[in-house]
Amino acid sequence: MSFSSKVFQTRTVKMADREETIVAGGRNLFPLLPKAFDGIKQIGVIGWSSQGPAQAQNLRESLEGTGIKVKVGLREGSSSMKEAEAVGFTKANGTLGDMYDVIRESDMSLLLISDAAFAENYKQIFAAFRPGSTLGLSHGFLLSHLQAQGEDFPKNINVIAVCPKGMGPSVRRLYEQGREVNGAGINASFAVHQDVNGKATDYALGWSVALGSPYTFETTLESEYRSDIFGERGILLGAVHGIAESLYARYVGNGMGKDDAYLNTSESITGPISKTISRSGLKAVYDELDDKEKAAFRKAYNASYHPCREILEEIYDDVASGNEVRSVIQATRRHGTYPMGKIDSTDMWVVGEKVRANTERNYAPLNPETAGVYMACMMAQVDLLKDHGHPYSEIANESIIEAVDSLNPYMDYKGVSYMVDNCSTTARLGARKWAARFDYILKQQAFPAIDESAAKGQTPFDKFLSNNIHEVLKVCAELRPSVDIAVVPTRRG
Amino acid sequence: MSFSSKVFQTRTVKMADREETIVAGGRNLFPLLPKAFDGIKQIGVIGWSSQGPAQAQNLRESLEGTGIKVKVGLREGSSSMKEAEAVGFTKANGTLGDMYDVIRESDMSLLLISDAAFAENYKQIFAAFRPGSTLGLSHGFLLSHLQAQGEDFPKNINVIAVCPKGMGPSVRRLYEQGREVNGAGINASFAVHQDVNGKATDYALGWSVALGSPYTFETTLESEYRSDIFGERGILLGAVHGIAESLYARYVGNGMGKDDAYLNTSESITGPISKTISRSGLKAVYDELDDKEKAAFRKAYNASYHPCREILEEIYDDVASGNEVRSVIQATRRHGTYPMGKIDSTDMWVVGEKVRANTERNYAPLNPETAGVYMACMMAQVDLLKDHGHPYSEIANESIIEAVDSLNPYMDYKGVSYMVDNCSTTARLGARKWAARFDYILKQQAFPAIDESAAKGQTPFDKFLSNNIHEVLKVCAELRPSVDIAVVPTRRG
Repeated sequence: MSFSSKVFQTRTVKMADREETIVAGGRNLFPLLPKAFDGIKQIGVIGWSSQGPAQAQNLRESLEGTGIKVKVGLREGSSSMKEAEAVGFTKANGTLGDMYDVIRESDMSLLLISDAAFAENYKQIFAAFRPGSTLGLSHGFLLSHLQAQGEDFPKNINVIAVCPKGMGPSVRRLYEQGREVNGAGINASFAVHQDVNGKATDYALGWSVALGSPYTFETTLESEYRSDIFGERGILLGAVHGIAESLYARYVGNGMGKDDAYLNTSESITGPISKTISRSGLKAVYDELDDKEKAAFRKAYNASYHPCREILEEIYDDVASGNEVRSVIQATRRHGTYPMGKIDSTDMWVVGEKVRANTERNYAPLNPETAGVYMACMMAQVDLLKDHGHPYSEIANESIIEAVDSLNPYMDYKGVSYMVDNCSTTARLGARKWAARFDYILKQQAFPAIDESAAKGQTPFDKFLSNNIHEVLKVCAELRPSVDIAVVPTRRG
Repeated sequence: MSFSSKVFQTRTVKMADREETIVAGGRNLFPLLPKAFDGIKQIGVIGWSSQGPAQAQNLRESLEGTGIKVKVGLREGSSSMKEAEAVGFTKANGTLGDMYDVIRESDMSLLLISDAAFAENYKQIFAAFRPGSTLGLSHGFLLSHLQAQGEDFPKNINVIAVCPKGMGPSVRRLYEQGREVNGAGINASFAVHQDVNGKATDYALGWSVALGSPYTFETTLESEYRSDIFGERGILLGAVHGIAESLYARYVGNGMGKDDAYLNTSESITGPISKTISRSGLKAVYDELDDKEKAAFRKAYNASYHPCREILEEIYDDVASGNEVRSVIQATRRHGTYPMGKIDSTDMWVVGEKVRANTERNYAPLNPETAGVYMACMMAQVDLLKDHGHPYSEIANESIIEAVDSLNPYMDYKGVSYMVDNCSTTARLGARKWAARFDYILKQQAFPAIDESAAKGQTPFDKFLSNNIHEVLKVCAELRPSVDIAVVPTRRG
C-alpha cells in the first residue's frame, strides 16, 4: 500500500519482504497541523467511553493556539457530561454540547460512541453531517454493520478512520509522556474510505499526528475492522485472559502456591515477558532463558501453537462472516436484563489483587512455560493475519505492540477487568466470550501434550526463530522512542 | 397445536395450562404400519453416523414381514459401509447401496447424513427425489441452512421430520428394551413441512411409531431446529459438560479428593440426580434432601440460575439469527486442518476414567450444591423455551427427558467424549464451544455468590416449586413405561 501527502513527509520502510509507506509522528510536526486541517475550524469528538477522553484531550493540547476548536458532543443527559467537564470540556466555555448539534456545527466529527449506539442511531447521525464535512471513525465496526444491512455512508462527505493501536487510557498516557520524550505514543493505522474534497488523507494524517502516534500506516476500513475485532478477541484480551486463568489453574493443581502461581502467570506475562518484547523483540525472551528453560519454552510453544491457532481461525471466520458483530448487537440488546458481568471474582484475580497490593513483593519471574504458551498464541495470530493478507504494520501493532505497550501494563496495574473493561463494549464482550475457549482448548489439548513424555513431531517452534515478524518488529521499534511502559513506573526492574 | 391421523388414534393431553395432541406408541401399533406407509415399498436410510444405524435397524425390525424394504444409502467408498454390512445391510442382499441410487429408487428417504454434508450437497440430493416421493429429516438444520441461502425444498415432494429426543445409540438401546417392556423408547417430535399427497402426517407418525417412540408430539421444522440446536448447546451437552468441569475444579480447590470430586460432580449428575428426575421428577431431587442440604441446594440454585440463563439467551439468539449454523459450516471447512479435538484429556476425565473402571466404587452421592447448579441451568432452559413459545412436550423432552433418559447415562458409562461424540457434528461442535462459557460464567459469577455469606435477594428458587414443568413432566412420564436407563444395568442402586 502506498499513499502521498501534501503536508507530511512520507517514508517508505522495508518490512521484511514487503515495503510500506508511513508517516513518522512527533511533536515537531504539530506546526503542520493547521495546514493538514485546511478548511476545518471545529473538530467534534462524539462519545466519552474509551477513546473519547483520550482523543479529545490530545487533540485539544496538540491544536492549542491554532484556532481550531475541539468540542465534545454527548447525548443530552449523559452521565459522561460530568467527566468531560472535569477535564475542561464545558458548556460554559463552548466546548461541550449535544452530540447532534456538535456534528451539525463541526467540519469534522470523530464518532467514538459505542458500537451498539452506532448500530441503533446511524441514520440520525448521518443526517447530521453537512455535505462536504468529514466523518471520522476509530475502527471499522460501522462499515461491517452497514454492509450487513445493505446500506452505505452518505456519498457527499469524507469518510476517514484513524485507529490507535491501544486502549484510550494509554493513548492519553503515552501522549503525556511525549511531552518529555518526543514521539512517545500509540501507533495508529489510517484509512480513507471516501474523499470528496481531495483533503481526506491529510485530515487523517493530521488527526493521527495530533493524537501523538509515533507512526501512522495505511489500511482499509475492512482490513482494520477484521484485524481489530479479531485481535482483541485473540492475544490482546481474550487469549491473554484465558491463558493466564488456565496456566494459573495448572500450576496450582501441580502444587505451586497461589501467590507464586499468580506471579508465574499473569505477572510473568505483563511484567518480564511484555517488557522484554517491548524493548528487544520476541526472540529476546527466548534468548534470556537457560538451556533447560529453553527446552520448557519449546515444549510449551509446540504444544500450544496449533490449539491456539484453531480458536483464532474460528474467531477470524466469525468476524469475517459478520457473526461476531451480530452477536455483539444481540448481546447489547440483552444488557437491560443481563448486564455485563464481573470477570475478576475468580480465585486467580482475588489472589492477584492481594499480590499486587503488596509493594514489597518479589519481581515476577520469566516463567518459560508461560512464555511458551503466550508467545505461541501471539505467533499463531501473527501467522494467521499474514496468511489473510494484512499489512505487516497492522499485524505487528494488532498482535504484539498493542499487547505489550498498551494493554498488558494495565492488566499488571489493576487486573484483568481494568484492562478489558477500559476497552469498547465490543471488545469487552469478545474478551468474555473467547477467553473461556482458549482456556478449554489449552486444558484439553496443549497441557496434556506438554505432560506427555514423548515428543509429538509438532515443530511450530522451528518456524519461530525464522519468522519475518522479528525484522518487522525491529523496524517498528525504530519508529518510536523507548519509554517505560509500566503504568506505575519504577515498581519493577 | 393439533393434528389428525387416518391410521393412529390421537390423544389430547393436558400439559399444565395447555393442551397437546399426541400419538402414544408401542409395539401393539406395528400392525398398523403398512396402512400408515400406504404407497411406500422402500424406505431409504441415508447416512450412518448417530441416528442412521439406530433408525435403520429399528425400522427394519418393526417392518419385518410387511414387505416394506429398508435400504441403507451411503457415499460410494464410505468407511461406514463395513459397519452397515456388519449389522446385515449388505449389497449382496440388496439393502445397501449408493446414496443417490437409494434415494432415486425409494418412495421415502430419511436424510440422516451430517449437517455439513447436507449443506454441501443439498442440490444434488434434492435432484434425486422422484416427484411425489417423501423426504424425511431428523432435525431442522437443513431448513435453517436453506433459509440462509434464500432457497427452498423442491415443491413436488412431501417434506416431513421425525426427531427422536435422544442420541442414536439410545434410540436403538431403548427400542431393544421395548421387546421386553412394551413402549420403551425415545420420544420424538414430528413436523409436516410439505404434504403433496395428503399422507404426510401418517408417514411421519408411522416412522415415529416404527422407531419405538413412546409418544410423538407435533412441532414445526423451525421450532424443532431452534430448540434442538439450542438444547444440545445448553443443558443436554454443553452446559452439563461445563458444569461438571467447573464444579470439579471448585471442589478440588476446596480440598476434596479427586475421586470424590468426580463422584460429587459428574457421577452425581449422571447417577442419582438423573435417575431421580427420570423416575420421580425434578422436585423429587429437592425433596430427598435434608434441611441443611436443602439450604445448600437453594443457595446454589439461586446463584446459578441467572448466569446460566444469560449464556442460554446468548445461545438462543445465536441459533435464531443463523450465527450458530454459519459457525458450524465454517468449522467443518476447517476440519481438514483442524480436526475435532479431544475433550476428555483434562484432569477430571482422566480421574473419571479411573473411577469408572473401579466396579467396587461407592455409589455417587446426591450432592446438593451440584444438584442446585445443574437443575438451575435446566430450569433456566425450560423457562427460556417457554418464553419463546415452544410446546411443552418439546420443552420437556429437549431440556429434561433427553438429558436424564438418553445422554447422561452415556456420560456415566464412558465419559463426556463418548456422550458428546456420539451426537451429530453440529452437536459436537456446539458442546465444545459452549461448555467453556458455562464454566467461566459459573466461576466468575455463581460460585463467588455461593461463597458470599450475605443473601443476595435473588430468589429464582421461589419459582422453582411452582413451575408448570413439574406437571408437564408427570404427564410425559405417564406416557412411557419406566425402564432402567443405566447403560450398564445394575451397576448402581
